[in-house]
This record gives sequence, structure tokens and C-alpha cells, in this order.
Amino acid sequence: MSVWKDYQNENKERFLNELLELLRIPSVSAKTAHKADMITCAEAVKTRLIEAGADTVEIYSTEGHPIVYGEKIIDPSKPTVLVYGHYDVQPAEPLELWNSPAFEPTIIDGKIFARGSCDDKGQFYMHVKALEILVKTNTLQNNIKFCIEGEEEVGSPNLGKFVASHKELLKADVVLISDTAMISLQSPSLDVGVRGLSYIEVEVTGPNRDLHSGVYGGAVANPITILAKMIASLHDENNHITIPGFYDDVVVSTEKERALMAEAPYNEDEFKKDLGIKEVWGEKGYTTNERTGIRPTLELNGIWGGYTGEGAKTVLPSKAYAKISARLVPNQGTDKMTSLLIDHLQKIAPANVTVKATLHHGGEPYMTPIDSNGYRAASKAIETTLGKAPIPVRGGGSIPICALFEKELGIKIIFMGFGLDSDNLHSPNEKFNVENYYKGIETIPYFHKYFTEMS
Amino acid sequence: MSVWKDYQNENKERFLNELLELLRIPSVSAKTAHKADMITCAEAVKTRLIEAGADTVEIYSTEGHPIVYGEKIIDPSKPTVLVYGHYDVQPAEPLELWNSPAFEPTIIDGKIFARGSCDDKGQFYMHVKALEILVKTNTLQNNIKFCIEGEEEVGSPNLGKFVASHKELLKADVVLISDTAMISLQSPSLDVGVRGLSYIEVEVTGPNRDLHSGVYGGAVANPITILAKMIASLHDENNHITIPGFYDDVVVSTEKERALMAEAPYNEDEFKKDLGIKEVWGEKGYTTNERTGIRPTLELNGIWGGYTGEGAKTVLPSKAYAKISARLVPNQGTDKMTSLLIDHLQKIAPANVTVKATLHHGGEPYMTPIDSNGYRAASKAIETTLGKAPIPVRGGGSIPICALFEKELGIKIIFMGFGLDSDNLHSPNEKFNVENYYKGIETIPYFHKYFTEMS
Repeated sequence: MSVWKDYQNENKERFLNELLELLRIPSVSAKTAHKADMITCAEAVKTRLIEAGADTVEIYSTEGHPIVYGEKIIDPSKPTVLVYGHYDVQPAEPLELWNSPAFEPTIIDGKIFARGSCDDKGQFYMHVKALEILVKTNTLQNNIKFCIEGEEEVGSPNLGKFVASHKELLKADVVLISDTAMISLQSPSLDVGVRGLSYIEVEVTGPNRDLHSGVYGGAVANPITILAKMIASLHDENNHITIPGFYDDVVVSTEKERALMAEAPYNEDEFKKDLGIKEVWGEKGYTTNERTGIRPTLELNGIWGGYTGEGAKTVLPSKAYAKISARLVPNQGTDKMTSLLIDHLQKIAPANVTVKATLHHGGEPYMTPIDSNGYRAASKAIETTLGKAPIPVRGGGSIPICALFEKELGIKIIFMGFGLDSDNLHSPNEKFNVENYYKGIETIPYFHKYFTEMS
Repeated sequence: MSVWKDYQNENKERFLNELLELLRIPSVSAKTAHKADMITCAEAVKTRLIEAGADTVEIYSTEGHPIVYGEKIIDPSKPTVLVYGHYDVQPAEPLELWNSPAFEPTIIDGKIFARGSCDDKGQFYMHVKALEILVKTNTLQNNIKFCIEGEEEVGSPNLGKFVASHKELLKADVVLISDTAMISLQSPSLDVGVRGLSYIEVEVTGPNRDLHSGVYGGAVANPITILAKMIASLHDENNHITIPGFYDDVVVSTEKERALMAEAPYNEDEFKKDLGIKEVWGEKGYTTNERTGIRPTLELNGIWGGYTGEGAKTVLPSKAYAKISARLVPNQGTDKMTSLLIDHLQKIAPANVTVKATLHHGGEPYMTPIDSNGYRAASKAIETTLGKAPIPVRGGGSIPICALFEKELGIKIIFMGFGLDSDNLHSPNEKFNVENYYKGIETIPYFHKYFTEMS
């Protein structure tokens, strides 16, 4: 469709500048200090949707950050695609590790460096620009709805209620999400599953106050030492997770599926070189791709306790803390796994400390079928613009809302991500390749076209 | 000596107010931001020494914080007592746990709450006031020298050089230090030893950048998990330290010494109640007093890594850190033990991380003989003012400079501390009982009197 390509070429620079503008808003959902920025960002999304051609756009307030809903309905009897994305971003810390400020997008070597450039502002905004192309070139043949939330990075605590109470508004034939990665533009892939998440925080309390480590050391349980022993015991010598029952519900992948996965390009030397590590790590008996795709994991996301400032302080602290998260695979239920994890930590805590463990947020794992019009349309769209059919892969990350969409709206989700694993998601120097951004905008109209034709 | 008592009674209030003034100076040696406060504090000490009757007072600058030296020489042929103390204090963090601001001394129920109230401003200042009493009542029969440093809490990195190059200036017959605790005014005790210290910082590096824990989790060694496993392995199931060779040089206490120690008042229920713990912890086969006195220990003083802020961030961090310190007993050499510790951490680090371990500071353990004039004078002074002879005990803390004084000046150290173990040293709500402060001021002149008589 050269009319699409022409329109995009004529507006290329503006498409990019609009994204950069969005990236300048520090919409960090985890931090209360950014509450006003969240509202500013939601309003910017609304404005852009209206400019792109949506005929109704509303900001729905929630108990947390607002949800932006927009739609372009050409004919209710035509197929409807619901685009889901999120305008909130992860905290940018540690700030000192960024080469350019996290909220001052900087383009170097064709890469946009900024928090949220890939996750997910750059990716959901491709859909806003695709809408503009379809509307302005008068080629839109289906209905498009947008549900862009502001709490994905904190576990979408309020989207569930919104979806459940707005089923008619959100009614669609498929959900389309660009919030994942592909292997590369040369080796395109489509995620067919995302892992679930159970994210908890643990507080270990020893003595009722910080103590002098000389006066009391050796005679009172040190909560850091105890927490370390608890953490150390969570993986055995084969890096299997030791929590009783943790693997019980895992759907074991077939040999065929594992053989298919093994075909995905993977070069261990490059993998190690990219990360600066001498050896990979992980559950015995599985490859790197399997460890991050089909197997559940347990990671320490943060730890702190005692004196962490400059110099030395000889303290035996009262408390130590950790943030721990499990990635879950089908059919591990989030609630069950969270309970297993919390109960286990309580159980292994020795009597000389008190352990408090609480859920931060969770999300169910999700799998999408490849024998669906949605998957076929996405595959064909990518083949059209990238010249190669994508291979189906399992993503390691989590999008907590997936299972909910299916449950409430009864429709399947298609993950059509244009990010890369190397985009430093959740890390300093997050980036999104300008080329991937443009390729996404180019590909999305084909998805709508093919999906409408197949329906 | 009623003339001493009368003088103290007449000046009681001022003695207290002068200490409070000193406590208002935030002389935190570990933090570069307090460099100016350190100078202010050194100058205040100098002024007070001159007012108390010292005839020479000098501030010696060092590569770090300055040392205040003062003296009152009545006759070089008379015995000379060198008082050592420190005007620097530990960092006050965590500030939110203080019931009153750390540098706004507050007196509640006869206790002075402030950082440094006991460690060591309140204690060294007793000697300044004792000097004043002796000088103003014309009863001083010996020479007194003061060496008050500003880097004790960071391991006295510059005092060694100062002592070595000022042997003639510091020449004395005994060193008198009030920087330890006694059991109570009702059960007085004198420390006969302090433990040595080896304080290191460990940095564990996994991947070269923070990673998304969903995309990479399960396939890359997490430095927090690895650090936890390393820490967990440092104590075995009997809480013995596992570092090979760690106990080799420990002087094993005789059964007689252990029997004497067992006579010190100790009530485990009260100990547990005071600390809010359900069970004590420590090396199997030893009592609480032995664990904190005659046995070496290894404590975690701090740990940090990954995301430690509000909410959740799904990161697999690049780095994790810990501050670890060992308390050493005779004859564990600090340098040797530090090397053992650092080498061991390097050795147990798996190949998928890099470990950097560096010394913060150290100090040799120290024992003082009880068959010396210094000890006898201190014992008799305490019996005079508290009505009961003190029992000799081993303190758990460290005063890194002790071994150095003995080596350079060839004299013994007497620890005559008036603090209490419950004074929250190095912790929030550090305190010093007003009564202990006054009793110390009352006792010190007797030490000088008896020591001079015995010499």
C-alpha cells in the first residue's frame, strides 16, 4: 500500500518528534511524587488520539492512575481491534548509570535513549500513528479501540475493575498489544505467551533496634545473615527452586515444542559478551531460551538493610529487606504461587527473627494460540513489511492484564512487539531503535487489513 | 575528697550544659559533608581544655580530621596519665528511628539522648571536667595529657602516624580511656580487653548492566542471589565461622577465665526482653558473654543491591554490595584475618560473577593486665565512688588504637568506661545517663590520686 508508505514518509519527522515529546513526561507509576506527571501524560495521549482521528476519547479516573480510552468506529458490524498499551514507565533509578538523562530523549546511532522509549510509549504510540495513517488516507476498513493504562508497571491494580465494568465499551474481536520484543528485524518473531508474575517484599526483623556490632555481634541473630540464608536456600545446587509444590502445576513443554524453540537463533558467546558475563546460569537441564521462556524463575529484585552509606558503620541492624519475584508459566496460578512463596519464607525463618512477607503485585501467565486469525494476520503483516514470516516464541516478561482480557471479554490476545531484548527495558539507558519504531508503524495497518479480510 | 565533690556540685549544671553544647556539633567522621563540623568540634574541644586548666593545647591537622592534643604538666618527674578519647561520632542514620533529633540533645528520665552522648563525647568530656576539678581545687599531683582524635569511628587511619612521630610529646606512664561500658553503677566492671576489627566491603558484579528480570531472569546469575549464597556459607549450622584458618590463632580461654566470666550478672530473659528477640543466637558451645567477649565474630553491617525504592521494579541488577566486619580476639592479627576473609570471598565466588572485596579499616585486639598499677588505681577509684570493687570483663567492641599505643609508647591501657551496653551505641537513640556522667567525673580524680600514690 504505497499510499500508507507515502503518508508515513511525508510525516516521518513529526511522528518521531511526537514520541520524543511523550518521552519527556516522567510518568513513573510506582512513585507518588509523579502523580501529576501521570495526569499530564494521560492528557497528552488523549490529545494525540484525537489528532490521529479517534472520534471519542475519554480519560477514566481510577483509584490509582487514569486510563485513556479512545475509539474510531467506522461500522459496528465490522471487525474491531482493541489496542492495549501503557503510558506509565518504570522508575529510572539508578540515575547515575544513564549516559543521557532518562527523561530527555537522546538519539544516538539511530536509537532513542529514554525511559519508556520501548516499554511502552514508543510501542503503543506506533498504533496511534498507524491509526492516523489509516484515517488520513481513508483506508480504514475496521474499528479500532484503544485502552492505554497508567499502571502496568505496578501490576495494573485498577484495570481489572475497569475492564469488568466496561465490557460493552471494550467489546472487540481481538486484543493487539505491542509491549514485547522480537528477535530482530532480520529474524522477526511473535510472542505466543508471556509469563505470570508474583512480586513480594520480605522484611526480616531481628532485635528491636540497631545494635553495636561489637557489643552484641555474635550473640544476636543478624537479620541480614538470616535473610541471606533464607535467600540462599531458595535455589538448590542445580538452580531448581526449592519451594515445595512450586513446579507442581507447570505445563511441561513437549519435545516438539522444545525442538522448535531450539531453532530460534541463539549464540551463547554473543549472549555472554553482550552481558559481560563469563558463564550463563540457570536451571540444570534447560537451555537459555527455555530458562527465560518455558520455565518459572525466582529472582531477587532488590535487597537492603543496615548501613549502606559512605564509609563504615559497625551496626548489627534491626531489619533487612528484599524484593523477590517469581515468573510463572502456564498453569501456575498467581495466587497459589504467591501463597506458596510467602508461606515457605515464613516456614524457613528461624525462631530468632520475625518475617513479614507481602504481595506487591501479581499477574497470570498467558498463552495465545497460533491457529487464530489474529496470529495469522500478525504473521502475514510482518512477512509483508519485513520480508520474512515470524517464528513463534515465548516471551520471558509478564503483562499482568492478559488473562483478565480473555476472561472478561472472551477474546484472544496477539503480541506484536517491535522491541529487542537488548533494549535495556527496566534498566538504565533504555532504548528503542528508530527503525523498529517506523517498521512498527508500517506493519500495523497491514494487521488491520489482513485481520479484517480474514474475519 | 569533699573539696572535689563540692566543686562538682557547685558546677553541676554547667558541666552538663557544656556537654550538650558539644553534642550539638554533628561531627560525623565517615561523611565528607561534615568536614567543617569536624573542625568546629576540634576547636570546641581545644577551648574547653584551655578553660579547664590545660596549659598547652594544639590542634594537629592530619590527612583526615584533626587531632586535639592538650596537657597540664605540673612536674615532669611526676607520673603522667595520657587520656585518649575521640570527638568524632558514628553516622546518625536511620534518622527516622530517632525519637528526638540526633544532634539536638534531649534529656528524658535522666538520660541524655544524642549521637555521641556516650560514644565518646560524654565519656572523654568527663576527663576534661575532672581536670578542671583537680586544677581549680589545687589538688593535681600528677601530669595529665589529652589526645582526642576525630577518626576513631573510621578506624583511626591517621593517628598511628601521629603517635609514631610524637612519642616524646605523648610520653606517659599509662593510657586512660573511657570509651567502653560497665555492667551498671550497681555492678561496676572494668574492661580488660577489646576485640580487634576487620571491616571490609564486598561488591558482586553479575551482568554489565541492570537487566529486565523477565527477559533475562533464570538465565543469568543474579548478584544478589550469589552474594546471599556467599554470606549464607560464612557460618555453619553451629554458627561457627567457616573461613579456613579463621580460628587458628585464637587464644583459647582457660576454664578458670570462663568460670570467672560466668559470674558476671546475666539474665537471659531480660536480655531477650530488652532486645525484643525470642531466642539468642551464636556460636554453639559458648554463652552470650563469651560470644561477645572471648570469641571472634563475623557480622553483616549492611547490604544493598537492585531496586530498594517504593513499589516494585522487575530488575535483575548488575551489582550487589555488603559491608562485613569481623571482631577479632587475641592473637588474631588484623592483617592476616583481613586477607583470609577477602581471599575466602574471592575463592567461594562462582565463575559467573566478579567479586571485589576491599578493607575499610581494621584494628588489633588488645588485652590489659589486671596486675598493674593502672588497673589497681582504676579498681580502687571505682570502689571509692561506687562502693563496690569492679569485676574484670572483656568488652565486645574495638578501639583500633590500643595496640598502637602499647607498641609506640610502650605503656599499658586502662579502660575505665562509664557507659552501659544499653546505651544504643552506633544505633538510633544513643544515650548516656546523666548519673553515669557525673559519677565518671567524680571517679576520675581518684584514679589520678591512686595511680600517683602507687607509682
